[in-house]
Amino acid sequence: MSGAMTGGSLRARVVRVNTQRPYSVHVGTRLLARLSEVLVQERLAPSRVLVVTNPTVQALWLEEVEKGLGGLQWDLAVIPDGEVHKNLQTVSSLYDRLAELDFDRSSLVLALGGGVVGDAAGFAAATYLRGIAFVQVPTTLLAQVDASVGGKVAVDHPRGKNLIGAFHQPVLVLCDLATLETLPAGVYAGGLAEVVKTTIIDGYELLQFAEDHVEGLLRREPGVVASVVADCVGVKASIVEADERDLGTRMQLNLGHTFGHAIETSCGFVGVSHGEAVSIGLVMATNLAVRLGVAHVELLHRVEHLLGALGLPTSLTGLSVHVMPEDVRRNLRADKKRRDGKPRFLVPREPGDVTLVESVPGDLIDQVILESARGSAT
Amino acid sequence: MSGAMTGGSLRARVVRVNTQRPYSVHVGTRLLARLSEVLVQERLAPSRVLVVTNPTVQALWLEEVEKGLGGLQWDLAVIPDGEVHKNLQTVSSLYDRLAELDFDRSSLVLALGGGVVGDAAGFAAATYLRGIAFVQVPTTLLAQVDASVGGKVAVDHPRGKNLIGAFHQPVLVLCDLATLETLPAGVYAGGLAEVVKTTIIDGYELLQFAEDHVEGLLRREPGVVASVVADCVGVKASIVEADERDLGTRMQLNLGHTFGHAIETSCGFVGVSHGEAVSIGLVMATNLAVRLGVAHVELLHRVEHLLGALGLPTSLTGLSVHVMPEDVRRNLRADKKRRDGKPRFLVPREPGDVTLVESVPGDLIDQVILESARGSAT
Repeated sequence: MSGAMTGGSLRARVVRVNTQRPYSVHVGTRLLARLSEVLVQERLAPSRVLVVTNPTVQALWLEEVEKGLGGLQWDLAVIPDGEVHKNLQTVSSLYDRLAELDFDRSSLVLALGGGVVGDAAGFAAATYLRGIAFVQVPTTLLAQVDASVGGKVAVDHPRGKNLIGAFHQPVLVLCDLATLETLPAGVYAGGLAEVVKTTIIDGYELLQFAEDHVEGLLRREPGVVASVVADCVGVKASIVEADERDLGTRMQLNLGHTFGHAIETSCGFVGVSHGEAVSIGLVMATNLAVRLGVAHVELLHRVEHLLGALGLPTSLTGLSVHVMPEDVRRNLRADKKRRDGKPRFLVPREPGDVTLVESVPGDLIDQVILESARGSAT
Repeated sequence: MSGAMTGGSLRARVVRVNTQRPYSVHVGTRLLARLSEVLVQERLAPSRVLVVTNPTVQALWLEEVEKGLGGLQWDLAVIPDGEVHKNLQTVSSLYDRLAELDFDRSSLVLALGGGVVGDAAGFAAATYLRGIAFVQVPTTLLAQVDASVGGKVAVDHPRGKNLIGAFHQPVLVLCDLATLETLPAGVYAGGLAEVVKTTIIDGYELLQFAEDHVEGLLRREPGVVASVVADCVGVKASIVEADERDLGTRMQLNLGHTFGHAIETSCGFVGVSHGEAVSIGLVMATNLAVRLGVAHVELLHRVEHLLGALGLPTSLTGLSVHVMPEDVRRNLRADKKRRDGKPRFLVPREPGDVTLVESVPGDLIDQVILESARGSAT
């Protein structure tokens, strides 16, 4: 990964992702309207483009993208909004559209939207003609700092999230910070949970920067947001470069997600957002680290304080729905059993040092969950 | 690629395919019953196995496979027989089965059957949990010499064959020659067309061997068939190793397939088998080479003679359905337009030297088609 400031008045930041086929992530304001310019800069000359988006994003940003595509030949596919539509049926409708339009290997799929659009469009691009080029244009904070970089694309199956998927790196990621301005508060906050996760993974400097700029983050100050998005993309890029196929170190990106996923499952994915679940999961993972004796309680206080200051819940009592501790425990066990059968957990020892602990005693897990259910981790 | 004879009484031949993740192709008789032994030899220890097959192959060979799997935990998924079922719906049913059985990344999909089973099961394995291990156990000559090696997996879309797919190399290919003994004559002959294609791609020695062993091939003599299958797998392995992602030289494997595909499309894929179409396509491609002045007419005679001796049609008049030359011409143009827009053709200059000719004059193509429709290429 390498970062650089490009010249010109817009001063977009460019992060290079050195995967097997390298690509760039452009972070800046009002980039949508400059799309074709960026494509030329990246030596991408698609014969035609299929823009995949949802009705919400279409209403807000398609006009800008249309401007940005300039003279390029393009078509539109609108998929329904919401995680419930991140399924094979949606992908199948995209195959139909691509085939109907006679798209070939010189064509390009452009995903304009949040994680659902990026994942579904990305999986269609990964498997149409055994893989055609795709560009990610993430319009949520979560997608910009996490989902759009790294090439993991997938759709859900009734029996599990992201059960059907592929590794397919985009040829370009374009993060237009202007799109974050229109995000509902809850959606924006969900992205902040992943920002905090990334700072813990990376180290003291990023964590400190986030702590120092809570107000700027909450007010979505362009300078602060630009810096945080570019830095988080840089962290993600380094991790993905080291483990493109998710066979080892990339696992640390799941920090807080094991607990978080068990919380989401306990609510049937209703009434709790992914960001809220991850936020509580990060506190639980840090609490577990303290109880295991590998982290100082000071780190737990910092993590809790930062997440709380950013308006995120830090315990199960902070949710609008009631979550039963025994449900979380049961789902945690089912999830672990499903994935690899081992009761191991990712925990932070300190910022920049996330470790995998094997064979965590069951009673420690229980305590962590119960404390979260009582509304205090400390 | 490297070939070697293993020890033991069964004398299976092992061809190594040195793709990014290398794997072995075992060719021998009565290998099905030794499956678990071969898995151990290849250091494969799946937690469980899903055997995917169709009713025809199930009736003939599942008992043998059951014996071969020994103590391994396994389940069965039977998909309907026929190319018409090589679609997303079949793959979706396989996802359901894999999810229902809680298969994880330590599980394995075993495709037991011809190209349809291998392609559909392979695509499901390629995309379930972003890719789990799969073993190809091809039971047709076509699948053994061509489809099972190389990692191209795909299903059809109403608008095109193999439109939805991936590159996903198997972890092992097991060609049990005993399965060829029960093949209907037409299906077996279809595989011989791909054998002839492979010998032309490879060179004089293999072509000569096939010419010298027409009777043995027709009678399916174990020694002759074993040699031909292992040699063809070796040729395919070398080509795949050089171009795993099908970006250049791997294209030569399509020799005869451009014409062949146009013939199949002209019949709506009814009344003409893939092998028959490829056989006629090989004659057409060689005829084109002669007309372009890059091959000697002697090669055309050899190709025609060998295919004819193997019971394959060498012109459009050899089909049981009537094919209109103008349909072939139109489908050829549509196909070229669809794929890359360029009127280029793969033609053999001599055995072992297949070349891509750009900008072939339209009237030469027309002549080649018309001659085939008149029943003579010479």
